[in-house]
Amino acid sequence: MEKPWSGRFTEKTASIVDSFTESISFDYRLWKYDIIGSIAHVKMLARQKIINKNIANKIIKGLKEISEEIKSNRFIFKKELEDIHMNIESALIDKIGEIGGMLHTARSRNDQVALDMRLYLRDETKEIISLLKKLQTNFINLAVKHTKTIIPGYTHMQHAQPVLLSHHLLSYVEMLQRDVERLFDSLKRTNRLPLGACALAGTSLPIDRSYVAKILQFESVLQNSIDAISDRDFIIEFLSDCAILIMHLSRLSEELILWCTTEFNFAELPDAFATGSSIMPQKKNPDILELIRAKTGRVYANLVNLLTIMKGLPLSYNRDLQEDKPPLFDTIDTTKSCLKILIELLPKIRFNIDIMRQSASMGFTTATDLAEYLVKKGIPFRNAHKITGKIIAYCINNNKSIESLSIEEFKKFSDFFSNDIYNYLSPENSINNKISEGSTSEKEILKNIKRLKQIIKYEK
Amino acid sequence: MEKPWSGRFTEKTASIVDSFTESISFDYRLWKYDIIGSIAHVKMLARQKIINKNIANKIIKGLKEISEEIKSNRFIFKKELEDIHMNIESALIDKIGEIGGMLHTARSRNDQVALDMRLYLRDETKEIISLLKKLQTNFINLAVKHTKTIIPGYTHMQHAQPVLLSHHLLSYVEMLQRDVERLFDSLKRTNRLPLGACALAGTSLPIDRSYVAKILQFESVLQNSIDAISDRDFIIEFLSDCAILIMHLSRLSEELILWCTTEFNFAELPDAFATGSSIMPQKKNPDILELIRAKTGRVYANLVNLLTIMKGLPLSYNRDLQEDKPPLFDTIDTTKSCLKILIELLPKIRFNIDIMRQSASMGFTTATDLAEYLVKKGIPFRNAHKITGKIIAYCINNNKSIESLSIEEFKKFSDFFSNDIYNYLSPENSINNKISEGSTSEKEILKNIKRLKQIIKYEK
Amino acid sequence: MEKPWSGRFTEKTASIVDSFTESISFDYRLWKYDIIGSIAHVKMLARQKIINKNIANKIIKGLKEISEEIKSNRFIFKKELEDIHMNIESALIDKIGEIGGMLHTARSRNDQVALDMRLYLRDETKEIISLLKKLQTNFINLAVKHTKTIIPGYTHMQHAQPVLLSHHLLSYVEMLQRDVERLFDSLKRTNRLPLGACALAGTSLPIDRSYVAKILQFESVLQNSIDAISDRDFIIEFLSDCAILIMHLSRLSEELILWCTTEFNFAELPDAFATGSSIMPQKKNPDILELIRAKTGRVYANLVNLLTIMKGLPLSYNRDLQEDKPPLFDTIDTTKSCLKILIELLPKIRFNIDIMRQSASMGFTTATDLAEYLVKKGIPFRNAHKITGKIIAYCINNNKSIESLSIEEFKKFSDFFSNDIYNYLSPENSINNKISEGSTSEKEILKNIKRLKQIIKYEK
Amino acid sequence: MEKPWSGRFTEKTASIVDSFTESISFDYRLWKYDIIGSIAHVKMLARQKIINKNIANKIIKGLKEISEEIKSNRFIFKKELEDIHMNIESALIDKIGEIGGMLHTARSRNDQVALDMRLYLRDETKEIISLLKKLQTNFINLAVKHTKTIIPGYTHMQHAQPVLLSHHLLSYVEMLQRDVERLFDSLKRTNRLPLGACALAGTSLPIDRSYVAKILQFESVLQNSIDAISDRDFIIEFLSDCAILIMHLSRLSEELILWCTTEFNFAELPDAFATGSSIMPQKKNPDILELIRAKTGRVYANLVNLLTIMKGLPLSYNRDLQEDKPPLFDTIDTTKSCLKILIELLPKIRFNIDIMRQSASMGFTTATDLAEYLVKKGIPFRNAHKITGKIIAYCINNNKSIESLSIEEFKKFSDFFSNDIYNYLSPENSINNKISEGSTSEKEILKNIKRLKQIIKYEK
Repeated sequence: MEKPWSGRFTEKTASIVDSFTESISFDYRLWKYDIIGSIAHVKMLARQKIINKNIANKIIKGLKEISEEIKSNRFIFKKELEDIHMNIESALIDKIGEIGGMLHTARSRNDQVALDMRLYLRDETKEIISLLKKLQTNFINLAVKHTKTIIPGYTHMQHAQPVLLSHHLLSYVEMLQRDVERLFDSLKRTNRLPLGACALAGTSLPIDRSYVAKILQFESVLQNSIDAISDRDFIIEFLSDCAILIMHLSRLSEELILWCTTEFNFAELPDAFATGSSIMPQKKNPDILELIRAKTGRVYANLVNLLTIMKGLPLSYNRDLQEDKPPLFDTIDTTKSCLKILIELLPKIRFNIDIMRQSASMGFTTATDLAEYLVKKGIPFRNAHKITGKIIAYCINNNKSIESLSIEEFKKFSDFFSNDIYNYLSPENSINNKISEGSTSEKEILKNIKRLKQIIKYEK
Repeated sequence: MEKPWSGRFTEKTASIVDSFTESISFDYRLWKYDIIGSIAHVKMLARQKIINKNIANKIIKGLKEISEEIKSNRFIFKKELEDIHMNIESALIDKIGEIGGMLHTARSRNDQVALDMRLYLRDETKEIISLLKKLQTNFINLAVKHTKTIIPGYTHMQHAQPVLLSHHLLSYVEMLQRDVERLFDSLKRTNRLPLGACALAGTSLPIDRSYVAKILQFESVLQNSIDAISDRDFIIEFLSDCAILIMHLSRLSEELILWCTTEFNFAELPDAFATGSSIMPQKKNPDILELIRAKTGRVYANLVNLLTIMKGLPLSYNRDLQEDKPPLFDTIDTTKSCLKILIELLPKIRFNIDIMRQSASMGFTTATDLAEYLVKKGIPFRNAHKITGKIIAYCINNNKSIESLSIEEFKKFSDFFSNDIYNYLSPENSINNKISEGSTSEKEILKNIKRLKQIIKYEK
Repeated sequence: MEKPWSGRFTEKTASIVDSFTESISFDYRLWKYDIIGSIAHVKMLARQKIINKNIANKIIKGLKEISEEIKSNRFIFKKELEDIHMNIESALIDKIGEIGGMLHTARSRNDQVALDMRLYLRDETKEIISLLKKLQTNFINLAVKHTKTIIPGYTHMQHAQPVLLSHHLLSYVEMLQRDVERLFDSLKRTNRLPLGACALAGTSLPIDRSYVAKILQFESVLQNSIDAISDRDFIIEFLSDCAILIMHLSRLSEELILWCTTEFNFAELPDAFATGSSIMPQKKNPDILELIRAKTGRVYANLVNLLTIMKGLPLSYNRDLQEDKPPLFDTIDTTKSCLKILIELLPKIRFNIDIMRQSASMGFTTATDLAEYLVKKGIPFRNAHKITGKIIAYCINNNKSIESLSIEEFKKFSDFFSNDIYNYLSPENSINNKISEGSTSEKEILKNIKRLKQIIKYEK
Repeated sequence: MEKPWSGRFTEKTASIVDSFTESISFDYRLWKYDIIGSIAHVKMLARQKIINKNIANKIIKGLKEISEEIKSNRFIFKKELEDIHMNIESALIDKIGEIGGMLHTARSRNDQVALDMRLYLRDETKEIISLLKKLQTNFINLAVKHTKTIIPGYTHMQHAQPVLLSHHLLSYVEMLQRDVERLFDSLKRTNRLPLGACALAGTSLPIDRSYVAKILQFESVLQNSIDAISDRDFIIEFLSDCAILIMHLSRLSEELILWCTTEFNFAELPDAFATGSSIMPQKKNPDILELIRAKTGRVYANLVNLLTIMKGLPLSYNRDLQEDKPPLFDTIDTTKSCLKILIELLPKIRFNIDIMRQSASMGFTTATDLAEYLVKKGIPFRNAHKITGKIIAYCINNNKSIESLSIEEFKKFSDFFSNDIYNYLSPENSINNKISEGSTSEKEILKNIKRLKQIIKYEK
């Protein structure tokens, strides 16, 4: 098959070169956007009288037929035609004849592929935002159920202070909310029109880029044609957003894996969301969560991939840019599948509330409350901390809990103790006594549930 | 020296542990923000009557003295005191006695370090934005000088079409403008107050977080205390912004290195901005540009570093988070120094305009104009492309330039050629004929210079 | 379909879980090794009388039939059966009945997949070594042709000293030789038997691991069953070897891309190994080389991926390890395809010898020879360097070449110059005068061609 | 101060350029190797009569004095002299006059810095190997103590089968042993002499590279001067070895952090190796382990850094290569400090043997033994697995342990059960019944302790 660009060439492309350079095996995925973009381009060409209106209509009709063929798997993609753009243009010419060759007027694959990628990524970004909102909603629903469930809050993986399970769950909603924000921010930079930059320098034909932008609902027109075709920032930024997003999911997965261990036993997965062992009959494994944790590597790697590709690349378009697609496509697939499965899984996890509560009182988790008690009595915090430290050491040596100490024992450490100290030593009291904004008290949690519901709805 | 947290400990920290865990050797850099944050905290504690106003004043006075001591290098940082927070608190207590221990009331190092990092990064982000604007301004100044300088535009490192040097230079202004946008976006997420989250759960003391936010000019208060102390998204996002930024600089550096080769000879560095060889007496090397290109690795790596650290980290604070500082500090230093030296270097580069112009006419760079000529005569673009390809092949075989072909020779390829074809074959004509938005015509360049000047000013 | 491990489960696996956790869509690639490994395992089970010999034969026959079915595309892989191991075991049981269930005796998927991966990677490593040797051979063949071709040697992309093109080409043979060495080294660690580790603890059945190792030609048996199933070092090491390898190819690609520019014009690609532009009819682009350069990002990323996966993973097997396959498979495919196309391309590149030679005398490339001339006359090198520097400055200011200076002009800079200086100023003399081991003289090049031919043959 | 290469330059280097390009602030660390290398070089120059013997002796004396000055902190490093090489050469000339300028005869900084790096890395590699052996020894010593301590073996973080603690510990010895192997392999490639490659092309002076190699104990001489000065493979390979090494340490750290949680409670750190909280008086945190886990990101990043730097770098030396030092130095410091602190910490960890043992019997960890019991009775493994799965489901539903089932209950699932089944259901029996090579039986463990002790000693 003759290459559309073969005019000046005297040899046929070597078949190994066809295989090595083709992108149709992965960029076929852009077909819908390639056709949408071409139709907008043709409409503009006709409006600007660069091509005849009748021809434009034939081209559009041809493109729509190709669209139907691809949709219904009747279209044959050809490797020798390199990419989705040449496959579609070539099919168009086969279909409507030589006039199909007018489609590529005032356009290069350089600006065309940039357009396709932006249209595609715009849709995918919105879909990921929508999945994030679903996951946030599921977290909030869980949080609503657990506004009285107490778990040990951890720092350094050690029991720190008792917190509400809902507080813990809502912290993920906050993280995911930042993911949403970041995706909206990157969307601004994705949603700019590159078409009309042509090869790199623009064109002598009287195109109307703003009209194309309007049809395709872009917010603006990229104003420097060299930049328009060599920029891949919008993809890197998206990959970076997803890297942070999946990092959040990896933290969640890690925690749930821990909570499902025999030792923690805070949570259990439904059988339908766990898998077994080929050799050990008793096993029930949290494979989903392990895979999400692992796929973090994949998404990070995709970011590294594109950053490496772009390093030190002279302007303007280089074929290197073709390699932007595998990491982008893989990131989108991975991110979406991880979000989707978590959306399903999350409401089905069983929390062992009693075990959580029991654990929350182990490890002297109310020691800070005791120190704050002393602060309220006027002792400088640093001293209060030291006194409490001594009490903990005493408890460890005597194998006692704080709440089991007699008032006499307390007074050995400080005269400021009186009987009201016993109102500060249970996890329940610890939580209820919190009054600061954003703290783990039920009041704050309820306030934040309301706030987050509002935010999630608002940005839909 | 006794650790401020040693109450419950029975052994002294091993000295190898002090060395391994200390962060004062690098987080001393946060001192200014640590003190600013502490002063705001103390003011709030006094206002809320959590501590006495007189004591608050003594603490503030003490902190200001410490500030002066650090500024004038009279302060001795101690490794055994682990970090900047404990170094300052400890010095305060030495200075004003036990009441200094009230400073840490209703505060943990977990929220304190998050505060310091946000205050610090807020300032540094603004400074980088300001450096970006300077570099953009220098690019625009150069572009203003070169609105008539013609260079070969490249794709695939092959001559593609003639473009104005100013067009090429302005493409970097566009890239840098996106860097500015991204940094402003990330700043929104940096500029939120974590203080008051305390260890992870908030406090039972009646603090007023909004008041602290107001004093410290934060846009909002982080609403989930667990999230507030375990979030490092804002740093990763900044690192990612800088990775894209330095990727832009690496592209520029690569181009300038090429332009300074004997073979390109498009540009020359001033002697004051080049270095020599220890063995080869004739050498004049573009070391600055090579180093910027190389430092890309460093900034990418810092991003990878923090992403790796955060992967799968259970909530909430873990000591792992201390390792966020080296990659952040190194990224800030590297980015700023690269920007600063480019700001200096850029205006001093000498461009060899004649060589650029001469090169722009090599490699059949106006072939696309010839094809567009045919399109205007009514030939479908794809055919026009093929005809032009044949003409190029003919030129190569007969060792001729396009513009040297006679009208008879042109007509052998298509009857549509007439004498006006000669108005399309020089680089100057190629450029002037461009009319599309964002193209390389002088008119578009002047329009964009105006637009960009406006944008840069506006966002200061 | 019932899962082979479903005994203790009360719910069917959710279909979204099947899709999310399956690996058959990519690990089908291991089928050959899975069957080879199973056959060796069964032979051992029979020899150890753990299973009956007749049954063993039936299992082996069944496995061989499955092998034929897969080879001829008659085998249907089922996603619900998760992976290649369960697909084959299940097909075996379908084929020969319940006794097929004896195959998995004293074996877990944990050690089975480790076995498959090692067998597979052993073969692929050897194939990559063989491709490296072919590429090295092609480099040497080119070097043989160019033992008199002179090019400018570069440091900092600036002309440094004249060197032979063969010298430059052979430097790539050295790099590739280190790649070969590293792959052989990693092969030692790949070539160890994990089978028999079972789930993680070994087995109470009397298996003979050494016998299996012998059949499968492993150098040794992994001695710690926990390590055997959780180790992925051998894959990371291979990925790292490939990262260095493709870095070498990226350097070569970059150079060839530069050499094919209009400005350098040192080399030209055959039309069959170049591609054109959809818009610019004159373009002939080095896409292959650009893609190799870009694919560096991919291979680096794969390394980052697996390193990230393994970070902080508790022992022993975790499902995370399933994600080792995509980066490994992609690295193997990418590395092999880049090597294969370079093997084809390299002999077909046309070098513009005259242009190279001409360029080699530009940029005062023999200044170091001049300095060494003075050293031979007794001047300390540092002074000789300074004197030569002054001469270069003089030449630049007066727009002269060194060799055009009169002896009087030379003597103005040092009395030590005499007429023999003119024997040191041409690129040819510069090269021929070199006498040090490993230098660019023809004698050294011929010696090294011989040495390298020997090494490449020897290690086959 | 005049630059030693300033002969051809007409302007002084800008001070911002000095600051940006200098490397003395980090490469001062190479001073010892720079002097050792220079002395070897001078000895050779004298032996080859390139310089006079008396002068050589003066140079050597001068270098030794400088060495003493640096050692005793009396040497002043100057930024304007760029790097360690120029600082030392310049000091030498100050000390012994113009003849000091003979030191740099037949040498460039290009081959000199490659030499320094190889000498330095050779020493550091050996030291890391020695630290690895110490850590391995400490693991073995612990394993010796725990040849009867039973822990639950995990897969997917779920209880899998009981194993000996020593078995678990020895798996780290195997990992570290591969680290040792890899470092020895990379050492082969580090231990090759680059000196004599000069700038890139060798020299016309009659140097003897083999003699230098002999003095400096290099195994061979690099045979291609272009490769010799542009190769950084040996550093990347080392960084990759360290990335795998610290990945091993991250797995260990993660496990120990888990084991120190309230929930696992398998282990406790001594107070001297833990740290406290500034706010929570009860806290005792495993900061060391968290920091090691985090520093994984740093070491990975250093690898990414250098790989990125080297991507697409044309031959031969480019200033980019200067940036190889920060990631190398940081990797060496980080790796050594992590190893050192683990060497100290490991023997001091307290294991809660009783809790481990108790945990080992939870989660039906002997189910596989039960299945293997049925296999021995002749049931195909797959069926045995299913039967056992049913028994587990029965146990869960009836809240029973396996060992508490009556023989009648067993027989409901299979007639093959008889009273000997009770010999297979305790963790002790499970472990003792293992007979396969590399399994968790005490016999195998003792064998492997012996083997590993031998290996560690042998390779010292």
